[in-house]
Amino acid sequence: MTVSATLAANEAVAARRAAGQEVLALGFGEAGIPVHPLLRQRLTKAAGQTGYGPVAGIGPAREAAAGYWTRRAIPTEADQVLLGPGSKPLLFALLHAAGGDVVLPKPAWVSYAAQSQLLGRDPIRVPVPAGEGGVPDAEAMDAAVREARAAGRDPRIVVVTLPDNPTGRLASEQSVKALCEAARELDLIIAADEIYRDLVFEPGAFPSPAAWAPERTVTTTSLSKNYALGGWRVGAARFPASPLGERLRESVRGTASELWSSTPMPMQHAAAYAWSDPQELVERVALARNLHGSVANAVAEVFTGAGCEVMPPQGGFYVWADFAPLRDSLAARRGIATGADLTRVLLERFGIVVLPGSAFGDDPEALTVRVAVPGIYGESDSERLAALVSGDPVEMPWIAEALEGLKEKLQALTASE
Amino acid sequence: MTVSATLAANEAVAARRAAGQEVLALGFGEAGIPVHPLLRQRLTKAAGQTGYGPVAGIGPAREAAAGYWTRRAIPTEADQVLLGPGSKPLLFALLHAAGGDVVLPKPAWVSYAAQSQLLGRDPIRVPVPAGEGGVPDAEAMDAAVREARAAGRDPRIVVVTLPDNPTGRLASEQSVKALCEAARELDLIIAADEIYRDLVFEPGAFPSPAAWAPERTVTTTSLSKNYALGGWRVGAARFPASPLGERLRESVRGTASELWSSTPMPMQHAAAYAWSDPQELVERVALARNLHGSVANAVAEVFTGAGCEVMPPQGGFYVWADFAPLRDSLAARRGIATGADLTRVLLERFGIVVLPGSAFGDDPEALTVRVAVPGIYGESDSERLAALVSGDPVEMPWIAEALEGLKEKLQALTASE
Repeated sequence: MTVSATLAANEAVAARRAAGQEVLALGFGEAGIPVHPLLRQRLTKAAGQTGYGPVAGIGPAREAAAGYWTRRAIPTEADQVLLGPGSKPLLFALLHAAGGDVVLPKPAWVSYAAQSQLLGRDPIRVPVPAGEGGVPDAEAMDAAVREARAAGRDPRIVVVTLPDNPTGRLASEQSVKALCEAARELDLIIAADEIYRDLVFEPGAFPSPAAWAPERTVTTTSLSKNYALGGWRVGAARFPASPLGERLRESVRGTASELWSSTPMPMQHAAAYAWSDPQELVERVALARNLHGSVANAVAEVFTGAGCEVMPPQGGFYVWADFAPLRDSLAARRGIATGADLTRVLLERFGIVVLPGSAFGDDPEALTVRVAVPGIYGESDSERLAALVSGDPVEMPWIAEALEGLKEKLQALTASE
Repeated sequence: MTVSATLAANEAVAARRAAGQEVLALGFGEAGIPVHPLLRQRLTKAAGQTGYGPVAGIGPAREAAAGYWTRRAIPTEADQVLLGPGSKPLLFALLHAAGGDVVLPKPAWVSYAAQSQLLGRDPIRVPVPAGEGGVPDAEAMDAAVREARAAGRDPRIVVVTLPDNPTGRLASEQSVKALCEAARELDLIIAADEIYRDLVFEPGAFPSPAAWAPERTVTTTSLSKNYALGGWRVGAARFPASPLGERLRESVRGTASELWSSTPMPMQHAAAYAWSDPQELVERVALARNLHGSVANAVAEVFTGAGCEVMPPQGGFYVWADFAPLRDSLAARRGIATGADLTRVLLERFGIVVLPGSAFGDDPEALTVRVAVPGIYGESDSERLAALVSGDPVEMPWIAEALEGLKEKLQALTASE
């Protein structure tokens, strides 16, 4: 197994910087915001907690997570919740518990496919509805699953991402409802990765599959994105209150006990606080949402201005840009024929680190790229904090400058040499 | 997958206590010593470190781990080291990287077999040399591997534990050398789980397989046992400086990136300190070693006094007791025919939680049990600290009382009713 494209991008940036090279680091999905002092305080207070504790996580953290979901219109009891060291290992254990083949939207976050392959099965990729991201098109999924079954394969679970990484789009209620109906019809489990849930830019109803397919939806969250705490490694999964849910939860708990024992204990105490939605943190997340939304929209405009097709980002901190309208000129001027060619030229000629769509399961010849925008929030914690509390982050000089630099580089990419 | 026997024992104890029942908790392998203030300080200082960081772990922690091994006669460079959230997931990723079937000593720690099964393969269990524990007998392994290959199986890796969980024994230099030679002859990778390495009771040379099979031995360690920090979730693996080692390390790093991203960051900073072997912590580990050794030996004497066969414990915090000499009376008086019968009676009639040997791959009818001794170090952190700093822990009233209670219960178990 090779290293995940996103984490590899993070390490490539560190290596280039160590070598004194300038890099515009837009490859890695790290929220780039310093920890809230109250969360830091909770961790510090719990530093003496050294026991393994229950595999499922401590009661207060599971109760807080249950409250988190209940307040978001998914009524949840603490015994439906399992904690893990990030949602990543929980998703892996869930794919194992489901057994059989995995259906993914195309494109989808890198690790779903890798985890499926670790279990010995190539994923079944289904295109997303036109203009959307994060869920397979329901009709296309129905056809793909029936075809796979006719060919002797055994699809049992579909993974969706709301809002989506890599596209930055939030699937429509209509598409999620259709997906839920199709999953029920096909008897597929739904894994709803809602790790960016609190970072949807516009207020409004959130189309969680657990609302329309409560009996078969497992939902995951984490502190990593909403609270910018990737390095703390704490996530949670919510299992349905159904016989299926109980079976899946017990299987995931078993895998957890053999693979990672339990979740870092001091972080569980911090999570118990965060998931109780205290006012200070609710305000913090609102600031983060504004920062991500402002910069993502500004970055999207830069790519649109350069001639790309870009769907307006709706949540998280990614922009999905398609250079298809520039295909002929990129081929003629730069010899670019594939997404990998494109990201190589962007890195080697312009110092821009972005990931090709193919890393997310898009076709190799697609000229799509995923842009992670937190890389321009600032060089230091004080710059990033200033951007966070600013009402208008794109006016911060270093962000404005980075946007201008990106604009110039994209112009140079497509200009005659 | 069901929950690991050791973690299940921990949860069973918590449940019985919550229900107001008295329990002598000798099931779970938790070191039971409060965190050293300097380690707690390091964690607190690093609480603001929230980035994912490199998949392999931060440089200072990898360098400290390299120093840790180098000072223990296994010369190591930082780039041979990978950190993980405990050594458990590192071992799983290593089994995956090795591919093929897994050879285990019989008995062996519970999770090796479960991880092998998670990868779709039942382990090949090979008896340990008479009177030892933690390594397969070399000749028996040679025969078992050749037989397995002749039958179409594909053994590629052997896991050893030094000192051993569950037997509490440290394999002899002679047995480890023979194991290394056999592994080379058979072209097996050696996974040397040395998580209890600093807890060997008697001073002397440590028989690490990396000394005699440096080209094929992957060694793991962790803060969980030596520093009693199971809930902090930080471990490390050392890969050989060989083409095989590089291939395995890169594969494990890839699996890590897709399964758990990185190791809890504040804990990596604490680990960087711990693995540098500062004098204060060296002294702390010496106290822990004395505590574990004193109590393990006292517990072993209690079981010997009750008529069991017990090999003197040599490291870690376990006692392996065999009730075989009492088989007839246990059968006649208690209807006990298997290890599971025995542990059930011990729990239900006497409130003693221990694990049957069968949980570790011993034969179901064997009347062996694994006893984890930290359960009697104290009810509170202050009792446990007092036991730690006491020169003679078994004289602490609560430990003496627990030993006396255990003695009476074992007498009652075998007495006429």
